[in-house]
Amino acid sequence: MTEFITPAAEPAPLSAEELEHLDAWWRACNYLAAGMIYLQDNPLLREPLLPQHIKARLLGHWGSDPGMTMLYVHLNRLIRRCDLDMIFLAGPGHGAPAVLAPAYLEGTYSEIYPDKSEDVEGLRRFFRQFSFPGGIGSHATPETPGSIHEGGELGYSLSHAHGAAFDNPDLIVVAVVGDGEAETGPLAASWHSNKFINPIRDGAVLPVLHLNGYKIANPTILSRISHEELDYLFRGYGWTPYFVEGGDPELVHRELAATLERAVAQIKTIQHEARVSGVASRARWPMIVLRTPKGWTGPSSVNGHRVEGSWRSHQVPIADVASNPQHLADLEAWLKSYRPEELFDADGRLLPQLRALAPLGHRRMSANPVANGGLLRRELRLPDFRDYAVSVERPGGSRADNTRPLGSLLRDTMRLNMRNFRVFGPDETASNRLDAIYEVSGKTWMAEKRPEDDDGGYLAVDGRVMEILSEHTLEGWLEGYLLTGRHGFFATYEAFAHVIDSMFNQHAKWLDISRREVPWRAPVSALNILLSSTVWRQDHNGFSHQDPGFLDLVTNKSGEVTRIYLPPDANCLLVVADECLRSSDRINVIVADKQSHLQYLSMEEAIRHCAKGIGIWAWAGNDDHGPEPDQPDVVMASCGDVPTLEALAATEILRREFPTLRVRFVNVVDLFRLAPPAEHPNGLSDADFDTLFTPDKPVMFNFHGYPWLIHKLTYRRTNQARIHVRGYKEQGSINTPLELAIINQVDRFNLVIDVIDRVPKLRSAAAYVKERMKNEIIGHTQQAHRYGIDRAEIRDWVWPE
Amino acid sequence: MTEFITPAAEPAPLSAEELEHLDAWWRACNYLAAGMIYLQDNPLLREPLLPQHIKARLLGHWGSDPGMTMLYVHLNRLIRRCDLDMIFLAGPGHGAPAVLAPAYLEGTYSEIYPDKSEDVEGLRRFFRQFSFPGGIGSHATPETPGSIHEGGELGYSLSHAHGAAFDNPDLIVVAVVGDGEAETGPLAASWHSNKFINPIRDGAVLPVLHLNGYKIANPTILSRISHEELDYLFRGYGWTPYFVEGGDPELVHRELAATLERAVAQIKTIQHEARVSGVASRARWPMIVLRTPKGWTGPSSVNGHRVEGSWRSHQVPIADVASNPQHLADLEAWLKSYRPEELFDADGRLLPQLRALAPLGHRRMSANPVANGGLLRRELRLPDFRDYAVSVERPGGSRADNTRPLGSLLRDTMRLNMRNFRVFGPDETASNRLDAIYEVSGKTWMAEKRPEDDDGGYLAVDGRVMEILSEHTLEGWLEGYLLTGRHGFFATYEAFAHVIDSMFNQHAKWLDISRREVPWRAPVSALNILLSSTVWRQDHNGFSHQDPGFLDLVTNKSGEVTRIYLPPDANCLLVVADECLRSSDRINVIVADKQSHLQYLSMEEAIRHCAKGIGIWAWAGNDDHGPEPDQPDVVMASCGDVPTLEALAATEILRREFPTLRVRFVNVVDLFRLAPPAEHPNGLSDADFDTLFTPDKPVMFNFHGYPWLIHKLTYRRTNQARIHVRGYKEQGSINTPLELAIINQVDRFNLVIDVIDRVPKLRSAAAYVKERMKNEIIGHTQQAHRYGIDRAEIRDWVWPE
Repeated sequence: MTEFITPAAEPAPLSAEELEHLDAWWRACNYLAAGMIYLQDNPLLREPLLPQHIKARLLGHWGSDPGMTMLYVHLNRLIRRCDLDMIFLAGPGHGAPAVLAPAYLEGTYSEIYPDKSEDVEGLRRFFRQFSFPGGIGSHATPETPGSIHEGGELGYSLSHAHGAAFDNPDLIVVAVVGDGEAETGPLAASWHSNKFINPIRDGAVLPVLHLNGYKIANPTILSRISHEELDYLFRGYGWTPYFVEGGDPELVHRELAATLERAVAQIKTIQHEARVSGVASRARWPMIVLRTPKGWTGPSSVNGHRVEGSWRSHQVPIADVASNPQHLADLEAWLKSYRPEELFDADGRLLPQLRALAPLGHRRMSANPVANGGLLRRELRLPDFRDYAVSVERPGGSRADNTRPLGSLLRDTMRLNMRNFRVFGPDETASNRLDAIYEVSGKTWMAEKRPEDDDGGYLAVDGRVMEILSEHTLEGWLEGYLLTGRHGFFATYEAFAHVIDSMFNQHAKWLDISRREVPWRAPVSALNILLSSTVWRQDHNGFSHQDPGFLDLVTNKSGEVTRIYLPPDANCLLVVADECLRSSDRINVIVADKQSHLQYLSMEEAIRHCAKGIGIWAWAGNDDHGPEPDQPDVVMASCGDVPTLEALAATEILRREFPTLRVRFVNVVDLFRLAPPAEHPNGLSDADFDTLFTPDKPVMFNFHGYPWLIHKLTYRRTNQARIHVRGYKEQGSINTPLELAIINQVDRFNLVIDVIDRVPKLRSAAAYVKERMKNEIIGHTQQAHRYGIDRAEIRDWVWPE
Repeated sequence: MTEFITPAAEPAPLSAEELEHLDAWWRACNYLAAGMIYLQDNPLLREPLLPQHIKARLLGHWGSDPGMTMLYVHLNRLIRRCDLDMIFLAGPGHGAPAVLAPAYLEGTYSEIYPDKSEDVEGLRRFFRQFSFPGGIGSHATPETPGSIHEGGELGYSLSHAHGAAFDNPDLIVVAVVGDGEAETGPLAASWHSNKFINPIRDGAVLPVLHLNGYKIANPTILSRISHEELDYLFRGYGWTPYFVEGGDPELVHRELAATLERAVAQIKTIQHEARVSGVASRARWPMIVLRTPKGWTGPSSVNGHRVEGSWRSHQVPIADVASNPQHLADLEAWLKSYRPEELFDADGRLLPQLRALAPLGHRRMSANPVANGGLLRRELRLPDFRDYAVSVERPGGSRADNTRPLGSLLRDTMRLNMRNFRVFGPDETASNRLDAIYEVSGKTWMAEKRPEDDDGGYLAVDGRVMEILSEHTLEGWLEGYLLTGRHGFFATYEAFAHVIDSMFNQHAKWLDISRREVPWRAPVSALNILLSSTVWRQDHNGFSHQDPGFLDLVTNKSGEVTRIYLPPDANCLLVVADECLRSSDRINVIVADKQSHLQYLSMEEAIRHCAKGIGIWAWAGNDDHGPEPDQPDVVMASCGDVPTLEALAATEILRREFPTLRVRFVNVVDLFRLAPPAEHPNGLSDADFDTLFTPDKPVMFNFHGYPWLIHKLTYRRTNQARIHVRGYKEQGSINTPLELAIINQVDRFNLVIDVIDRVPKLRSAAAYVKERMKNEIIGHTQQAHRYGIDRAEIRDWVWPE
């Protein structure tokens, strides 16, 4: 276990010279990490430090940097010795200095940003830009070479790391988990990701729990439990923990070197044995607990308070440097303790013998193309989605489970992309009727299998369907998978998509910044989320499962990276899914219920309808039949499968009851067509909007989600006040489908009443129809409460021929 | 350790009679659990089972019920023997049958819902209402007696349990954790809650991990790792695990009885030793791993597929019962296997010798007043918030950290309520400048302490400030604390409030249902959330920390339970906080930045302003000075601290530049004043809205959050199209405060330009002012990028005398 499998490796203690070089590289990292927090000039301290060399505002986080750079330096050593393919994820919040410093010292930074050249002036600019207006942030933001994990919000380093490792058999992903981050829920759950790593097919994740000891103002829990508990915890999580602990750099150098060798050897051994034998079984992969002092090598105390080894070194260890001469002197002494004069040549470039310690080219973790995954991304090979069409002879004439054909499409997509496509979902792939996928690939499962699993369990060590009951872990895996150049599809419960609201926010921000500010990042595949088990079919789950508000969240993020589709039937869902699977640098949210629904559009019609994203369904309305074509009395609009059904049924009642009423029927698939073009690239022009909705006629809009979202999107449209929206308004319990629609007033009967109330020519004459609608509502509610079902003719309603 | 401390307890093996009685009670529970899924009539099978006895739709979840009822029965035994004060939290999703059944058998259900009486007809109604339209859900919803944890969304059972146990020294909270739930992030993190339980002051949590084996369609991770790993995992989490495993009821009865005795004895011993010695130290509390077959005692196989012990028993084990005679017969045989005729008397009431096994009165877990915490709630004793006022001699004439006085108010609130008030926050209480609280109470910390902690660490075993870097755990603790009748205050990072979006949704729904549908639930204290570290002061954290969208989420929930306050200064924050701390059955969200801000209102003015929630600041505008009083040319409105500062500065520029321009200044504290009264009880009438904003003049609204939220709230107001909103629009990086405002156009200069563009009388004449504003914008941006700071005169801007 202690021998490297790779021929290049020779396990051996560090020689004095190697130790000296490693330590020098580490000092250079730490010098840069501290320098970027403080200095705007005099970057190598070749003049006495003066207040004008200090930035006006001292921002950035020192605390976890030296521990992380120590690790980075030693990983570089192993990469060189063993020709490892490795990337580095900095979990600790604000840990950017610890990855920016080596990225600069390895030369990557200057290659990407030539003005941050490897000389005194480049270093000055490098320091100055850090946490500086117009510069870069203190997290490993998209601007950071080698990063796929920003870390501003805590909890996702380990799930991102596993996502990167899936289907990357030669890759080792080192994930530094901060001990603050380790307290979060998403991180605590993601330790179990090791049960999903197949040693033949996947790469490895080497987690390093950095027991830095403190958060902003508190000790961390994991740093204050016993060694035994810590050891148990990680063994319980299924890892083999190794401990490296100490504050003496030389000892930590030696221990870390030996431990990393041991860990990497263990990884290589596990993989080798599995790959030679062809038997993939669950491994107890190594992980490392690295306990070093917070703010290590920084000032040990300031103003009589302990700083090194205390939460006081979390951010800027010495404050008021420009105004306090003693602090200025302390800072200078601290910075000089790294002996920059022994590290950089006259031009300000790292000395050649130190440069030689970094890996070369793409082996540098800061330059590994895996961390700019768009470079490696191959287009998804997609079957022709038309092949999965459901037959629709006339609108509303037949039924289908809307998501089943999508399942077949995903199955064959999987078949064509068995190395770079995975499907994710919290235990609901079958429940969402996507189970055709299992014909091609089962669910990844490396934990224990039992005989009964063979009866419909679809568990497989080489499965490509990822199921775990943690939306956080799934989303993190998927993000890591996409950011390293692959493709994926995530199906989840609509109401519980809110569990990952914040992850959605962060990924949208990552994509937005990458697109706007980071031209060297190649586009990555879209993150595709299917929200199924939607609000309108929660008749037996009740109120807690009714929440269509994820869409509201999506509309708060940049229109350049967000799309929302609400296909009304199976063929539209296929068209939309094809579009989503082909797209990049976006988050596509599709809302589609899994249950049996009426079908409206043939495949060719669906293609035309979805290409526009919004359109008039002439067959449903009658506004082109009257004496004044294109002058409807009312526009009935719908968005979403169930609201479309009800809006169609209402339209049919209206046309039956009021033959002279001219109704236009508009269906919306692409929600952002409603937004102003200035706010979303898909937004309709005002002229087109008025052409569809008329400039002045009442619009009755039946919406899948919260009604006010439509007002939010349309508030600048002509005569916005005539747009009346129905949608979910937090009314629901155990109801039949129709009853649920009724209590939220998205049902056909209430829609008819709404139209009567809003079309002047109906208002007076239609009292008897309103009365009948009210009686229908009462009758259906009584039916539901008496028999627990909707009336049969309602369930089986079809659009008349 | 195996002896009960409580005198009533006598550890002994189960006698044959006791075993028989316990098993009979358990069979009764399981009979009821199955019956409520299937039967709408013939509840005790006194007639042959016919299709018409079966519900039209079979809904509900059987899988985890028998394991949970087994536990419940044995807990009842211990409660009676040891006079325990105990509540039961059902973590597994859809676990309601397992708590509804004993609640009915204990008599509680009939006491609360007399129509569900303890007789055949009552039982029929009890069965029929379950998962039936107009009835109750399949989760432990608020309608469920004894529940404080609905469990529809998974992950919070253990944090809720700990919240209930804090400051309830005699209480034992049994939290059943489903092995599906255990995969979620929030649950995985919450095992560490044991480091925050003080054995002197707090009650105990007894977690029972129910290793049911399967989720909807998959095995669970924890059921498929080795026994050794499972044992390590919980020891690593700091618990003492006990295992009860098996499928033979008799053996499980015996083992569970003995194990529960051991566990409760251990709890009592820990508490006794701590309480006698007065030394509170961290305990390794017991927890139980209960491994029983999924769908235990149900049909072993159906249609050739294994059901008991398989995911196939997750929901309804036998389908198509009404239409398939074989299935009907199978169901009848299954239900009869519980021998209902041996359990219920002729009237349909549980036999007296079995009734006698349940605890009495409030000792029944279904009737424990702790689980209807409003009954136990004592009003918070509050100091006079006026005592913490900052002195404001004239508007904008002085500065203060807005949250510091609130810290003092909370400190003294804490002092007056040292048994039923706690403050929660993720490691940011001091960072949010609420650290005055530490003068009265430190941070709860039961893990290891070190000497250096005494230098400003404020760690204390009896601390009442709860800090852990998990918003999920904090929110869960707080919810559990409130639902059991206490008070709390949660301060968290604005952007990362999205981490708990879904928990907010679920708690809002719980409160809404309780208020609307469950009259017997007494009001509980409001959940108060302070969002600090807000979007406008993220100049050094950057884009990832900028997200004011939590408010959008809040506005999707029922107006009856939601409030949003954006106090513009320190005195308004005090007024608002006092209101929030006094309120019940609500979620109050307060947005207030922690940094130093200009102060505008004296305390008396703040009281008047906040009482209205929205109002004209006459000192800032000049619309009452012109020839036509109350006829402004433009209304400048603001909501939020930083937007108010910028709107005031813009108003000052406008008045200086255009002395004849009449500007009205409106400030909004209570955001829901903008909503229509039909949608929120705090909504202004249209008449009042028009009085404030005029019916037709341009309104320039400077908002803290995403601008379209204001449109969402005001879309029905008169001439909505004239309301122009500025707010955060996803633009930001490392910027100075003013630069961040500028790029989102909420700054004074852009606001002046906006007004010029919208007030007809300015449009032509004001080109030179627009030019100057644009130059100001350029100048400030250059300044920021050059020196990293805002220009001094801007930082120090004050409203002119």
